[in-house]
Amino acid sequence: MPRPRLTALVKSLPAFVPFVGPEAQERARGRVFRARLGANESAFGPSLKAIAAMEAAAVENWRYSDPESHELRAALAQFHNTGIDNIVVGEGIDGLLGLTVKLVVESGDVVVTSDGAYPTFNFHVAGAAGRLVRVPYSNDREDLNGLLDAAVREDATLIYVANPDNPMGTFRPASAIKQLIDRLPDGVLLCLDEAYSDTAPADELLPMEALHPQVLRYRTFSKAYGLAGARIGYCLGEAGLIGHFERIRNHYGINRVGYVGALAALADQTHLAHVVAKISCAREKIAEIATANGLTPIPSAANFVTIDCGSDGAFAKRVMDELIARDVFVRMPSVAPLNRCVRVSCGREEDLAVFAAELPQVLAAARK
Amino acid sequence: MPRPRLTALVKSLPAFVPFVGPEAQERARGRVFRARLGANESAFGPSLKAIAAMEAAAVENWRYSDPESHELRAALAQFHNTGIDNIVVGEGIDGLLGLTVKLVVESGDVVVTSDGAYPTFNFHVAGAAGRLVRVPYSNDREDLNGLLDAAVREDATLIYVANPDNPMGTFRPASAIKQLIDRLPDGVLLCLDEAYSDTAPADELLPMEALHPQVLRYRTFSKAYGLAGARIGYCLGEAGLIGHFERIRNHYGINRVGYVGALAALADQTHLAHVVAKISCAREKIAEIATANGLTPIPSAANFVTIDCGSDGAFAKRVMDELIARDVFVRMPSVAPLNRCVRVSCGREEDLAVFAAELPQVLAAARK
Repeated sequence: MPRPRLTALVKSLPAFVPFVGPEAQERARGRVFRARLGANESAFGPSLKAIAAMEAAAVENWRYSDPESHELRAALAQFHNTGIDNIVVGEGIDGLLGLTVKLVVESGDVVVTSDGAYPTFNFHVAGAAGRLVRVPYSNDREDLNGLLDAAVREDATLIYVANPDNPMGTFRPASAIKQLIDRLPDGVLLCLDEAYSDTAPADELLPMEALHPQVLRYRTFSKAYGLAGARIGYCLGEAGLIGHFERIRNHYGINRVGYVGALAALADQTHLAHVVAKISCAREKIAEIATANGLTPIPSAANFVTIDCGSDGAFAKRVMDELIARDVFVRMPSVAPLNRCVRVSCGREEDLAVFAAELPQVLAAARK
Repeated sequence: MPRPRLTALVKSLPAFVPFVGPEAQERARGRVFRARLGANESAFGPSLKAIAAMEAAAVENWRYSDPESHELRAALAQFHNTGIDNIVVGEGIDGLLGLTVKLVVESGDVVVTSDGAYPTFNFHVAGAAGRLVRVPYSNDREDLNGLLDAAVREDATLIYVANPDNPMGTFRPASAIKQLIDRLPDGVLLCLDEAYSDTAPADELLPMEALHPQVLRYRTFSKAYGLAGARIGYCLGEAGLIGHFERIRNHYGINRVGYVGALAALADQTHLAHVVAKISCAREKIAEIATANGLTPIPSAANFVTIDCGSDGAFAKRVMDELIARDVFVRMPSVAPLNRCVRVSCGREEDLAVFAAELPQVLAAARK
């Protein structure tokens, strides 16, 4: 049969999907989940003002959204006290990570990340034929010195750090990130994924004023803002570097309703504060449930809690599978020693009640 | 100042934006447009059922959309009488074109297109370091034989054809496209952009049953379905080829509200038929207005009419600029001889009334 010529790279890529969605699991099981605690969405939902804005925008959805996302970038610039040229808006952080990799990674270039960190980032690096160097976590935190050492040793072009970290939820204060940035070798780009920063201690976050030319910072409306379905993320950085995204991004990739929702959500900081407080309570509740069942919650600055199940990856996998079998959607880290854990998103009281009710039987079944 | 190392390709790319949006023009002018006739959106809007579905989905926008877009692909498969594995959903056709280029274009590979055809496609080819070979239009139609000859001569990896064509609106019946496909040399991929197919003669469109392994067909909810803001396009092709998109696409790139809107819009074919009839009337109306002013409308199968202004590119540019100065947003082709024209989208009666009222003064001013 005649065939198009695929690139050598595409032919070499594995048929890998970073995250199978809960809907696919529901289709396979023939049953919906009772508690959706696996994707770190915010079941507390977005601002009512954002919902109203999105409802009103539906009728206007025959128009493309402004390809410059000017109004949102202006609002974000005011919010972060940066210039509008320091901001690019994209189809979630995932989309922006793909573009970032395209900006700096050529075939064979070394990219440094933590072993067990965000698989979607690794997916994009593979898609650019980059060579991933993985540094082990240290005490369930990303090993900043280890990442830096690897970057120097391997002459890396890109370093990925998430703060708060996913999948572990651990947090490094500004001083530690600042030290990493001060020691970056010339030529490397630090990709600082701050998807979960809204739930971290605000006074310990790296300040925004000094946008370093070798650092890009990623934020999103998908987590604490409660708009995962909107696919609106943004990237902050030095204007010259941000400007390069114009050369490669999908200029008409932003959807109008999500965009309008993000604008309204940003303007409602009262709702965000309210949700952050609820997430904080949910973190405590998940930790209590874990502890009451003899498991060890890892202190989290994110909108989820990762729970050490006290054994190996096979055991944690059984815990996850038993939870899923009981209609509780959760996920787990993929790599040892992180994979001794399961990860539980900060759901509503009713979601966590399902988790609490099922966990004892889940553990009994997993221990059989 | 220390800098990240950008790739040689990114450094070489021009700071080119395929289409400056009407919002940027409005900001520059300090005044909004009275008639939005430049982006081939559908001012007739989407189905009321789609609007209702999107309104209802706003409150659910805290959830990611199903990364497999299963329900929409299943509905599209039924609609087109294909398998679900023949379909991939993406962030508009623009996003899918970028992925297609990534599938088959390596640095230096030849890509054949028509001179003056879709700039966003060219943007993606440049972003993959492909070498564009441009074939002149013939009588305002894409020269299918010329494109094929160029592909054979240059050992091209990819051919781009839009049918109906944009920016000219001309249409090639199934027999002509079929002949092109039958003569495709082994190894080449035909990218058949059918964004405007919903407004073309249905019985003259290439049937869907034979999905050729060297052809990908692109459809969208942005045009006749009236959901440009939703960013939902899809690509149809042989399952093995479609499957390769999984290796490189942004799996969580689809927004929930747009997705829900597309599902509801597809289900309301009565509305689509209604809009297609209105677009047909609007095409006639635009042609009448052009003729009444001594200009020559080019017969169109799309949701716009391209009007030959009877002189050169400089004159048509003055016509466009004078229309914009009078708050009528239109666009024009970028390349001679197509650039003797301006392109007017099929707006509502009130939009076209503004165009009709302004055109005589516009032409007088342009002729000065």
